[in-house]
Amino acid sequence: MSVLVVGSVALDSVETPFGKADNVVGGSGTFFSAAASLLAPVQLVGVVGDDYPLEQLEPLRQRGVDMAGLEQVAGESFRWRGRYRHDLNSAETLETHLGVFSHFSPKIPPQFRTAPFVFLANIDPRLQLDVLQQVERPKLVACDTMNFWIESRRPDILELIKHVDLITLNDGEARQLTDCYNLVKAARWIMERGPKLVIIKKGEHGAFMFRDRHVFFAPAYPLEDVFDPTGAGDSFAGGFMGYIAQTGDLSDANLRRAVVVGSAMGSFAVEKFSVQRLVEISKQDVESRVAEFRRLVAFEQEGALVS
Amino acid sequence: MSVLVVGSVALDSVETPFGKADNVVGGSGTFFSAAASLLAPVQLVGVVGDDYPLEQLEPLRQRGVDMAGLEQVAGESFRWRGRYRHDLNSAETLETHLGVFSHFSPKIPPQFRTAPFVFLANIDPRLQLDVLQQVERPKLVACDTMNFWIESRRPDILELIKHVDLITLNDGEARQLTDCYNLVKAARWIMERGPKLVIIKKGEHGAFMFRDRHVFFAPAYPLEDVFDPTGAGDSFAGGFMGYIAQTGDLSDANLRRAVVVGSAMGSFAVEKFSVQRLVEISKQDVESRVAEFRRLVAFEQEGALVS
Repeated sequence: MSVLVVGSVALDSVETPFGKADNVVGGSGTFFSAAASLLAPVQLVGVVGDDYPLEQLEPLRQRGVDMAGLEQVAGESFRWRGRYRHDLNSAETLETHLGVFSHFSPKIPPQFRTAPFVFLANIDPRLQLDVLQQVERPKLVACDTMNFWIESRRPDILELIKHVDLITLNDGEARQLTDCYNLVKAARWIMERGPKLVIIKKGEHGAFMFRDRHVFFAPAYPLEDVFDPTGAGDSFAGGFMGYIAQTGDLSDANLRRAVVVGSAMGSFAVEKFSVQRLVEISKQDVESRVAEFRRLVAFEQEGALVS
Repeated sequence: MSVLVVGSVALDSVETPFGKADNVVGGSGTFFSAAASLLAPVQLVGVVGDDYPLEQLEPLRQRGVDMAGLEQVAGESFRWRGRYRHDLNSAETLETHLGVFSHFSPKIPPQFRTAPFVFLANIDPRLQLDVLQQVERPKLVACDTMNFWIESRRPDILELIKHVDLITLNDGEARQLTDCYNLVKAARWIMERGPKLVIIKKGEHGAFMFRDRHVFFAPAYPLEDVFDPTGAGDSFAGGFMGYIAQTGDLSDANLRRAVVVGSAMGSFAVEKFSVQRLVEISKQDVESRVAEFRRLVAFEQEGALVS
């Protein structure tokens, strides 16, 4: 089954302690698509300017990303320039040019409107709500957001979450949205306002998935070389939704596997600049890393304390 | 089998957003003993002043902590006063009075010298080395340390780690000691200098255990109410070493279980002030929490990506 994603398609310029890359493909929609398309057909909706090197998206198209919803309009593409210091934990934004993205108004092509799985990547929550008006009862709708929208568009986010099944956000954003420092309480606060599922991403510290009273946790894979953290969160979401779309299974056991597949995709994303690593990996690579995740956390309970 | 611990026995005064406690039992040796003694006989070596309310250690004695090595000398006991803000992540130290602890010179009673398991809690590395001169070939020696010693006694720490099997330290300390930001590299740096096992504690973000090329990770239990984080790391170590002493088993599978038991003990420690929660829990409580840890991270790999 296919997954529809609405998000940004950008040009990133990134500096890390290990190198730099100029005007490489980036954006939440792009990273999501690169990860998800390994597992399921992806329909991408976004906008780029007439300066965008569309040929750089060719590897995504070859992987099965349908770009019928990617508008190209007159003007400049969304560009982001950032730098990571040695800790690689948070990007320092040096420049942001929204360009044509500032007037983005997502138009979902008719053939995309029945997508069973929908991911509303991090864009203005009013646009995310607008997308929901255009699609027909998906099996699962997920959204992401960021601090900027939580600050400036809080009422819209509260409206949005009434209509989504899953929200992914990072720990800082969860705290900002809910005013609860404790993440268990923050997740409950959100679940009381709509989403049945809440995924709180903690970057290098892994991710929690909350559902009712259940919690699942997947660590981030302890890589020896993190090359460029850009796009890890969107790649996580792409792996998660791609796996859900591939299997069509929303059972607890499968949602847990989807979180691990998401973590695996996030761990690949950071091994190279841009979507470079994501487009070169195979399903077998993901499978192997999922197995490594199992070894990372596996323990047997036998040898019990109480005998 | 028994476990010997050499560490501080202090009086803590703690303020958290949820309440305050004055002059309650604290210190690395105390928290370690409270956790470990649920699982194995503990021999505690430390020092207190003549002002110490020894009756407050009675619950530990009843749990099987042998205090033949706890000296009481003229002078004031080690006192620490700290405060946690809402994030509960790092203590703000308001006052530290070392008192009699500043002249501490551990004397291991003859009947303790054959303890098969030894934990050198966070004290001056010269004293930790001195303890090793006094004991007879334990099966496993573990040590802890802190930023203060890494800064002021680096050559002694490097000498110490040549002689221990396991070091536990937090992520910041691992980075400070090794000058590697990446924790996988930091662990390798340490293992190349002595310890076969390295446990890097990340507080609310869980703990890694490194051994050769193997990594195991246990999350911190996602508690809804963290009451007072003081002593969580020493309780972790107590749970780990207590479990190892109870089972006498140093296999990989058992070391993994020991990390989870340690995490469980850390999660109990923070539920109340001082060692209060640790002395009231049963083995069955720990067993149940270990089962919750399993549910927290468990996923089945079936439903494979590659079919």
